[in-house]
Amino acid sequence: MSLLVVGTLAYDSVETPLGKAEDVLGGAATYFAVAASFFTPVRLVGVVGEDFRPEDRTLLESRGIDLEGLTVAPGKSFRWKGKYVGDMNVAETLDTQLNVLDGYEPTLPESYKDSEYVFLANSPPALQMQVLDQVNDGAFTCCDTMNLWIQSDYDGLMKVLKRVDMAVCNDAEARAITQEHSLIKAGRKLLELGPKTVLVKKGEHGAFLFSKDGYFYAIPAYPLESVVDPTGAGDSFAGGVMGWLTHSGSTHYEQLKRAMIYGSVVASYNVEDFTLRRFRQIKRHEIDSRYAEFLEFTAHP
Amino acid sequence: MSLLVVGTLAYDSVETPLGKAEDVLGGAATYFAVAASFFTPVRLVGVVGEDFRPEDRTLLESRGIDLEGLTVAPGKSFRWKGKYVGDMNVAETLDTQLNVLDGYEPTLPESYKDSEYVFLANSPPALQMQVLDQVNDGAFTCCDTMNLWIQSDYDGLMKVLKRVDMAVCNDAEARAITQEHSLIKAGRKLLELGPKTVLVKKGEHGAFLFSKDGYFYAIPAYPLESVVDPTGAGDSFAGGVMGWLTHSGSTHYEQLKRAMIYGSVVASYNVEDFTLRRFRQIKRHEIDSRYAEFLEFTAHP
Repeated sequence: MSLLVVGTLAYDSVETPLGKAEDVLGGAATYFAVAASFFTPVRLVGVVGEDFRPEDRTLLESRGIDLEGLTVAPGKSFRWKGKYVGDMNVAETLDTQLNVLDGYEPTLPESYKDSEYVFLANSPPALQMQVLDQVNDGAFTCCDTMNLWIQSDYDGLMKVLKRVDMAVCNDAEARAITQEHSLIKAGRKLLELGPKTVLVKKGEHGAFLFSKDGYFYAIPAYPLESVVDPTGAGDSFAGGVMGWLTHSGSTHYEQLKRAMIYGSVVASYNVEDFTLRRFRQIKRHEIDSRYAEFLEFTAHP
Repeated sequence: MSLLVVGTLAYDSVETPLGKAEDVLGGAATYFAVAASFFTPVRLVGVVGEDFRPEDRTLLESRGIDLEGLTVAPGKSFRWKGKYVGDMNVAETLDTQLNVLDGYEPTLPESYKDSEYVFLANSPPALQMQVLDQVNDGAFTCCDTMNLWIQSDYDGLMKVLKRVDMAVCNDAEARAITQEHSLIKAGRKLLELGPKTVLVKKGEHGAFLFSKDGYFYAIPAYPLESVVDPTGAGDSFAGGVMGWLTHSGSTHYEQLKRAMIYGSVVASYNVEDFTLRRFRQIKRHEIDSRYAEFLEFTAHP
């Protein structure tokens, strides 16, 4: 089975109460791809500038990420500068430079079009639709989004939601899309908008799964004593989820549950350091070990 | 096995985005006792004024709550007026009238002193200490507290924590007592202050259990579409927890886990309506049915 991700690669500058990192590799598609790469090979579609560092390309390739779909465009890579304060639940964006993202339209290499699992990382809904037009009808598709598109292109987002099999969003996004404060109501309303499965991420409070089949599943987050940098946590979660589903070759309820735990575990590692540092250190057996711990501290009496 | 609760009974006036209730029976000990009464008989120590309504006494008695320890003092009952807005996570106190609480000191009837399970509902630490001095050495004791005492009598609270077997507090209280933002760090620090077991309530996000034996347990909350009035949720949770422990006659880790789920389920009913209305309607089998549902939506893959 093959997993495709379409989304942004970036150079991030991030400050949190525990330190900072400047001009480091980030972006939704990057975090997603590296997180998913613990479970399955990944195909990536996105754009970077001529300033994209050879060592960053090497890092992605070393993780089994296929970069045939990575466009190198004239100019500079997308840049994001942000800061987390207090409980670090929300990033304050200090600066955004679209650079090569401006006007970019994702085109899938011919060899990617048979991808069975497709993740549309946070992007303008119109671009997400372009990707959906290029992938195989039988593909299992999942989208993410963000408040910017909920506010600026709600109708476009509705079209995307109608077409995807699964949607992943955080609590604030679920509330913003549905105008429901209760996450239980919000999750159920999201199902009515199209996707058969909806995952609502609640950061340190875990995640919910809602399914049109009537299934509901709730997990706490992996208990961390400290979070160094939450950047990419949501994309890492999605990467773990889709990586596991692709590896298992199934989107059956039981596999979705496993996928959520893997997503949660992978995200727990990611936030322990800035940028991809933790992902560069950990091995698959460490993921399995936290997975086992997870089962232990949530085991029924 | 016998369960004793010492704490406040009140007449509450509450307003939430979904309605209001005036001058209705409330108070930490009331919510605790009624919640626990689904599992075990309860002995109650507290004070009310001459305005305490006969029908409220009848209600408590009909739930198997022993009122030998209830003092009726000259004057009016304790009154609390509060309002919940937005996400209803925090109550805004509009008015507090201590009335008969002013100067009250809890005295246990002789027949209560052999109680094997004791809950010290939120009260001034000095009064909680007085209760600890009156109960059997072998009793399993558990305390709650609130921000007021954390700020005004931190040293007194430390003495209580050193003496109890278990402490129950919400996320904000855990953070305030330990000065740790991470709830995982906060829970572990609370163990160092004395109790062998610490339960941290996170409202709609569930609860954590920390144990000196190294056990950690995390549960989500029962998924409710809407909360009508969160007043008494924490006390109902504690009532379910202690009620189940008393019924089972054990504080073993496996029973503590069951107790947390029962606490969560009982609290989920309580918040579905104002004051004790839901508790007056539901039957024990409805609690067991939500308990079973809880196991289902948290079942391991």
